[in-house]
Amino acid sequence: MSETNHVWRLRKRPVGDISDDDLSFEEESIPEPADGECLFRLNYLSLDPTNRIWMSDMDQYMPPVAIDAPMRGVVCGTVIKSKNTAFKEGDIVSGIGTWADYQVASPETVSPLGDIGSVPVIDAFATLALVGPTAYFGLLDITEPQAGETVVVSAAAGAVGSIVGQIARIKGCHVVGIAGTDEKCQWITEELGFDQAINYKTENVAEALKRTCPNGIDIYFDNVGGDILDACLKLMNLKGRISTCGLISQYNATEDVPGPKNYPMILMQRLKVQGFIILDYVDRYPEAISALSQWLAEGKIKVRLDVIDGLENALDTVKKLYTGANSGKLMIRVKNV
Amino acid sequence: MSETNHVWRLRKRPVGDISDDDLSFEEESIPEPADGECLFRLNYLSLDPTNRIWMSDMDQYMPPVAIDAPMRGVVCGTVIKSKNTAFKEGDIVSGIGTWADYQVASPETVSPLGDIGSVPVIDAFATLALVGPTAYFGLLDITEPQAGETVVVSAAAGAVGSIVGQIARIKGCHVVGIAGTDEKCQWITEELGFDQAINYKTENVAEALKRTCPNGIDIYFDNVGGDILDACLKLMNLKGRISTCGLISQYNATEDVPGPKNYPMILMQRLKVQGFIILDYVDRYPEAISALSQWLAEGKIKVRLDVIDGLENALDTVKKLYTGANSGKLMIRVKNV
Repeated sequence: MSETNHVWRLRKRPVGDISDDDLSFEEESIPEPADGECLFRLNYLSLDPTNRIWMSDMDQYMPPVAIDAPMRGVVCGTVIKSKNTAFKEGDIVSGIGTWADYQVASPETVSPLGDIGSVPVIDAFATLALVGPTAYFGLLDITEPQAGETVVVSAAAGAVGSIVGQIARIKGCHVVGIAGTDEKCQWITEELGFDQAINYKTENVAEALKRTCPNGIDIYFDNVGGDILDACLKLMNLKGRISTCGLISQYNATEDVPGPKNYPMILMQRLKVQGFIILDYVDRYPEAISALSQWLAEGKIKVRLDVIDGLENALDTVKKLYTGANSGKLMIRVKNV
Repeated sequence: MSETNHVWRLRKRPVGDISDDDLSFEEESIPEPADGECLFRLNYLSLDPTNRIWMSDMDQYMPPVAIDAPMRGVVCGTVIKSKNTAFKEGDIVSGIGTWADYQVASPETVSPLGDIGSVPVIDAFATLALVGPTAYFGLLDITEPQAGETVVVSAAAGAVGSIVGQIARIKGCHVVGIAGTDEKCQWITEELGFDQAINYKTENVAEALKRTCPNGIDIYFDNVGGDILDACLKLMNLKGRISTCGLISQYNATEDVPGPKNYPMILMQRLKVQGFIILDYVDRYPEAISALSQWLAEGKIKVRLDVIDGLENALDTVKKLYTGANSGKLMIRVKNV
C-alpha cells in the first residue's frame, strides 16, 4: 500500500495543561495486520476527558500510554484488510485504538458497531459506542434513581452529562445541571428538559444548589470532582448516592489536589460513593444500546455533536475538553461514513 | 425521692480537644417520668468516638447536643419506675440516654437488653448493644468480604475495630490491623488472630501496608479517616470496598480537614465507599446479636473492656478515645449489675 499513514505519538507527559510539544504528528508507513488482526482506516476519533488520564502516569484504570507510542483513543473505522474471521472488509468497527489514520486491531480492542437501525454511523458512534452506555449504567446501575428524587449532574452539557440528565428526567427525577456558559445552561433546560441549570463560572455553586435543590440532593452524577463535588456533598440527603464518572477538574493539576473537605458527609448522611468505568459493563452493552436507541428514536434523548475535520487537528481539539470550549460530544472526522 | 442526681451538661462546644470547662458536672433533682416514660438508674455509660461529634455543631447524623443540655450517651440502666407497659421495674435497658445517674426514657430511646443468655450484663452491653452490631453490619453488609480477600482495619484495637478484624478472620480473610501501640499490635495479632498489625505511631503506614498487603487491599474498614484513609486508598484493588464507620482523626480538628488526596482512586479502581450508622440497622439487630453471641460463646470473638468507675470521671475518660489511651471498649461503671 503506497498511501501514507499519519500517527499522533505521545512524546512526553503533560505537566498541567497539554502542550503542543507533548505529542507529535508523524508520517509513517501503513502497518500490516498479523494473523488474527485486521487493518482499519479511521473514520472518527472520539475525544474524551479520559484522554488526559491516559497521557499521565497517575494511578489509573489502564496502563498509561507509553512515551513515543501512538496516542490511545476511542475510534470508529472501516476494515480494509482482515486476517481474522471476526472481521470482514467494509465492516464498521469501534473500540479502543489510536490517533492514527490506519491501525491494526483485534477482537480484544474493537468490535463491529452492532445493529444501529436507521441511526447514522456518526451518531451511533458518538452516542451509542461510549457516552450513552456510560450515562446509562453510571446513572441507573450505580445510583438507582427513583421518581421524585433530585439528581444533580456536572458537566451537564457534555457528552455524558447531557444524556444522564435526560435519562434522569425520563425516570421522573428533578434534574439540575451544572455547566460553564449561559448558552449551555439554556440548551440543557430549553432543549433537553433539565429542570434547572447552574452556570458555575458566573454563579456561586453552593448557593445556586440550595436554590435549585430545595429538597436536597439524592443523587450526584460527578464528572468533575473538586469544588463542585464538595458543594454537592454538603447538600446530600440521607442515603444519597454519588456516581463517580470523572474528575476532569483535576486531570490537569500539577500538584496533589486536596480531596473533598466535605468527605465526612459520607458518614453523616450514610452516602454511597461509587466509581465506575464503562469497560466494566461491556457484557451488558446490548441492554443500554436497546434503551438508548429507542429513546433517541422517540426524541426523548437529544444529542449534540461537536465535529472537527482532520486528524491533524486532534491535539488542538482535545484541549477544548479541559476548558469547556466544546459544545456537545467532541470528535474528529477523518472520513464520513 | 430524696437521692441526688448527677448530670453532665454541655456548656460550650469544644474547639479542638475537649476542655474541662466544655462540660459541667451538676447536682440536680431526680426527674419524674411522664405518662409513657420510665425512670432508670444508670449502670454503665458507654464512651464512644461519636460523642465528640455530638458535642459539635458540624453536619452530623443526629442534632448536636444543645448547649446546657445533658450530654448524650449510649447507656445501660435499670428501670426503677415505669409509666409505660413496655417497661417494668428491674428491667435492664439500653439505648440512647444521657450522662446522668437518673434519666427518663421512652421506647423510642431505650429498649430491654434482650436475650443475652449467660453473658454478663456488662459484656452484653459493651459488645452486643452497640459495637458488635456496628462491626457486624459495617463489615458484612457494606463490604461483603470473601474468603481470601485482604481486609485492613484502622483503630483495630478499639471496640469496633477489634471485632471487625475477628469477623473478617472468621470469613477467611487476610486481616491487617492498624493500632497505636506495640502492646495493641501484639494483642490483636497474638490474642485476636489478626494476620498482621501496623503501629501507625512508629511505622510509615504506607510502607507497612505495602509489606503486609502484598496482594493489595480489597476492603478497608475506616474508623479514622485522614492520612491512613489516604494510604489505604492508594493500595485499593479493583472493585474494592470502603466501609466508613468513623473519622476519628478529624473530630477534634479546629479547621477544615482536607479530604483524601487519593480520592481519584474511587474512579480509577471503581471503588465503593459507603458510610453507615448503626441506628440504620436496628430492625436487623437480632441477626447480629445471634451471630455475635454464638461467636462469643465459642471463643471466636474476644473482647477487652476498659472500665472506669464513677460518673464523675466521664469527662476525663472520654478524652482517652481521641489519643488512643484506652485499651478496649471504654465505659464508665456507675453500678455493677
